[in-house]
Amino acid sequence: MSTPSSASGPARWQRLGAHTVASTRIFDVRSVRFHHPVRKVDRDFFVIAAPDWCNVLAVTPDGHLVLVRQFRYGTDEFSLEIPGGMIDAGEDPVVAGVRELREETGFVGTSARLLASVHPNPAMLNNRCHFVLVENATRTVDQEWDHDEEIEVSTAPVEDVMVWARSGKITHALVIAGLMHFEKTWRARSLR
Amino acid sequence: MSTPSSASGPARWQRLGAHTVASTRIFDVRSVRFHHPVRKVDRDFFVIAAPDWCNVLAVTPDGHLVLVRQFRYGTDEFSLEIPGGMIDAGEDPVVAGVRELREETGFVGTSARLLASVHPNPAMLNNRCHFVLVENATRTVDQEWDHDEEIEVSTAPVEDVMVWARSGKITHALVIAGLMHFEKTWRARSLR
Repeated sequence: MSTPSSASGPARWQRLGAHTVASTRIFDVRSVRFHHPVRKVDRDFFVIAAPDWCNVLAVTPDGHLVLVRQFRYGTDEFSLEIPGGMIDAGEDPVVAGVRELREETGFVGTSARLLASVHPNPAMLNNRCHFVLVENATRTVDQEWDHDEEIEVSTAPVEDVMVWARSGKITHALVIAGLMHFEKTWRARSLR
Repeated sequence: MSTPSSASGPARWQRLGAHTVASTRIFDVRSVRFHHPVRKVDRDFFVIAAPDWCNVLAVTPDGHLVLVRQFRYGTDEFSLEIPGGMIDAGEDPVVAGVRELREETGFVGTSARLLASVHPNPAMLNNRCHFVLVENATRTVDQEWDHDEEIEVSTAPVEDVMVWARSGKITHALVIAGLMHFEKTWRARSLR
């Protein structure tokens, strides 16, 4: 990697403290004070503090992925996604993924493991999103939706879903990132 | 696509109104009231209202991508990303991408076009992120950082960056989604 910019590089801001300016059911807004050690200035930046999230790549025995379609309040539109949700305090990401899959879709698999973890938005969110792979997923139990949830469950061949991630039918950036991480594992598995 | 859930599908909530509960330089927090037409209930949901963002896939004549590394206040860590930023009111996404590339890195290309647009988080954000492809990018002008910006610019071969997106060296979900959209174009171009 060539580095045309200055050799010293950007400094690490030092976090001095934070206070919450707004609190909601799914995130807090914090004003965080940082100190720049070279410029010798203090600055306040707004950060959204949220629990970690999980997104689930649930593969059926016939090579389909489990999908959910639901109304999303942020965009005021329906969105086609993989199952997922907020991880409870102290909950393991894989356990959370298995739970969200079961609650949202009624699908249960025979094995589950962590595929990868990403940052939804390092600039303004403090949390991570964990991608959980569930194999041999079949519809086994009844859905248990949270209050206000209403979810259309479907399955589609993995190759179709990958096309949809690249063609704009799937627009949720976290879902696209999850599918990119999943694709490598899927290709390796398909080559067996 | 098989549909094991109810045939009727989830209802579209009707947006009744909103008020801003917190306002920052980069986003507002809004409480939005929705009405469910079947359940006949009104509910308030929190939404983060932000301008659209742009992320730039800038390819150099020798097949490298332009990268930026900077300290991020959300995660309190450094992050390796592609250039990008907020789109100004009324600004075209491609124009914004070219501007952000020039300001953050000093790179200017010979052509620019929109690759794809995604939703950073349909559940809680109202905005979109536009991926802009800039070709024949070379370091031409001086950087013009915003107040508080401090950016280490580098370039790396496209194939290395794709590996980093899949291996965890790049963790920003929007950047990973942008690289997945870019990859198809890159492969087609490499095959010419």
